[in-house]
Amino acid sequence: MTELRATPLTPEDFAPFGEVIAWEGAQPITINQGYAQRVNGLARVDVGEGLVNVSLFAGKPRPLAVAVMERHPLGSQAFYPLQDRPWLVVVCGNPRDTGSYRAFTASGRQGVNYAPNVWHHPLLVLDAQSRFIVVDRSGPGANLEEVLPPEPISIVL
Amino acid sequence: MTELRATPLTPEDFAPFGEVIAWEGAQPITINQGYAQRVNGLARVDVGEGLVNVSLFAGKPRPLAVAVMERHPLGSQAFYPLQDRPWLVVVCGNPRDTGSYRAFTASGRQGVNYAPNVWHHPLLVLDAQSRFIVVDRSGPGANLEEVLPPEPISIVL
Repeated sequence: MTELRATPLTPEDFAPFGEVIAWEGAQPITINQGYAQRVNGLARVDVGEGLVNVSLFAGKPRPLAVAVMERHPLGSQAFYPLQDRPWLVVVCGNPRDTGSYRAFTASGRQGVNYAPNVWHHPLLVLDAQSRFIVVDRSGPGANLEEVLPPEPISIVL
Repeated sequence: MTELRATPLTPEDFAPFGEVIAWEGAQPITINQGYAQRVNGLARVDVGEGLVNVSLFAGKPRPLAVAVMERHPLGSQAFYPLQDRPWLVVVCGNPRDTGSYRAFTASGRQGVNYAPNVWHHPLLVLDAQSRFIVVDRSGPGANLEEVLPPEPISIVL
């Protein structure tokens, strides 16, 4: 049994896996006659020859352990929480190498965009009925690979 | 002075302008080993030759009147609220034709995707610090047109 300790999500730590979608650290611009601020370009959405798929997820808590790792070779996948509650992000460089796993605690105002081919755990939430908006790819082709971890990995908050 | 009365946002009423992004009416699928439900394909994101731009907005309330109408000829623009609070959507077929305007009250669990070239009002929120995630287009080209209404139009809730 390996223990994987979660650390706070930061753009720097997450950079090998994609982007953190968040207001912090971005440079807002004022728009809409002064009635709104906007931060642009928060995710590199890459759907190749596919279409952009906007979807909604509703997740429920699952055991704090790595059940399976997955990746999407044909496109990026962005998640942003629709309530201001923390959630978890687990990624790895190689799902068969326990030492390559990272766990992050994301705030309810942080989303992530997994780059194409980045191994990540399916949605990990801490509260019932946790809703997310997801921007990824639809279209033909095999866009899902799944691998089990080589030994049990528990996630420690 | 024209009064424009807002009606509840429905996919049917909004269809000429784009899509309503919402759980209601969609067919969820169960994913992630049973720990999540997902509804797919909620917006036709069209960025032409551009890139998909994921951004965050923070809006503040403005007078309940039509200040200006805008459209984006080169791409769609989707808004989804990040807190469960109602907000307003104002669209029109022709900004110079007062009779073509429509106002909708959206719930905090309804987003919209404006199709390319659809005239719409800039973000209209009812509460301070109303945050949204926006999926639209970035890239070269003139992607913003603005037109003033021909006479004052007040929005009535």
